Amino acid sequence: MLPARRIPPARRILQVRSRLRILGIDPGSNVTGYGVVETSGASPVHVAHGTLRPARTASVPARLAAIQAGLVDVIALHRPDLAVVEQIFVAASARSALVLGQARGVALATASAAGLGVEELTPQEIKRAVVGTGAASKNQVQQMVRRLLGLSKLPAQDAADALAAAICQAHSGRLGTLVGRTSAARPGSGRGRGRSGYVLRNGR
Amino acid sequence: MLPARRIPPARRILQVRSRLRILGIDPGSNVTGYGVVETSGASPVHVAHGTLRPARTASVPARLAAIQAGLVDVIALHRPDLAVVEQIFVAASARSALVLGQARGVALATASAAGLGVEELTPQEIKRAVVGTGAASKNQVQQMVRRLLGLSKLPAQDAADALAAAICQAHSGRLGTLVGRTSAARPGSGRGRGRSGYVLRNGR
Repeated sequence: MLPARRIPPARRILQVRSRLRILGIDPGSNVTGYGVVETSGASPVHVAHGTLRPARTASVPARLAAIQAGLVDVIALHRPDLAVVEQIFVAASARSALVLGQARGVALATASAAGLGVEELTPQEIKRAVVGTGAASKNQVQQMVRRLLGLSKLPAQDAADALAAAICQAHSGRLGTLVGRTSAARPGSGRGRGRSGYVLRNGR
Repeated sequence: MLPARRIPPARRILQVRSRLRILGIDPGSNVTGYGVVETSGASPVHVAHGTLRPARTASVPARLAAIQAGLVDVIALHRPDLAVVEQIFVAASARSALVLGQARGVALATASAAGLGVEELTPQEIKRAVVGTGAASKNQVQQMVRRLLGLSKLPAQDAADALAAAICQAHSGRLGTLVGRTSAARPGSGRGRGRSGYVLRNGR
């Protein structure tokens, strides 16, 4: 009698490769949402989600450092294979674009420095993938994320947005091109550059 | 005969305290300038300056990670006591504010995560301190930075802007309040927060 769980080696490798963890990040200077899903067969499976809230009394640099530290901890804990962040085209003002850009830059750099491929998706792509329409409301996204992942509670808005981005990425079918596409911050990459992916020109 | 270099202990401590290294950073996604000066008596002394240039072919996240890695290296090499970054109020568009914000966020977070107090100065403050007028041109800043620090060559524009910020900070007389004012990302700081200065709320 054959053991019940015997799987041919080739299929086992395929199974390992097809189980991918995706980290969605919704960066913000007050609240940064994150969500981790695992692709496993037809629909993504919930792994974790939550929010990072730097002290409101802290300085802007200290808050950005706290977002960085929080994301480093989340990545170390959940070990995602790739990250996805919502792309932003418009903002209410140049001032709010700058503030949002600061938190976003920290998220992109932290994920890339951890060796993750980072994908950027438009809000429309994410809403269409999760709710079915690019014009979905924040609440619709929360409700659909809860239903798709079978969560017992409605996730916080920023965490729901992060989970939605991860779900969209899981459905996008572009996973193969992203995994293993590590950042220029990794050793050995870059042409003629230092191991950290930049050229340093020292003045005299 | 007394030894020539004998200094009373109290004065020695004061001397140590009054020699401060200031890191100026001019963040940009293509070129990030940095400059380090030391306050020692009346006028700041040049320590180092240069530019960090991520590979233009690299993705945005990889470029931001390269800026982060570069600044970590600069801080480890020159061990500044505090950092100063130019404050931005306006940008040509929300799009350019977002791009600038991303690089700026990485600079602020990296300096703060390294335990440095981070000061933000307006372009007008910096130009007034270095050239004498808040409406000075980029080239005037380069020329004056070269003269003030006795550099053999004209520093690159982004490095000159970073040095100018550091010189302005050295002259501001606000050094005492900044040194030792470390970020919330340091162990033990923050009220009721983790050691990294954020509150993590995990969803279910």
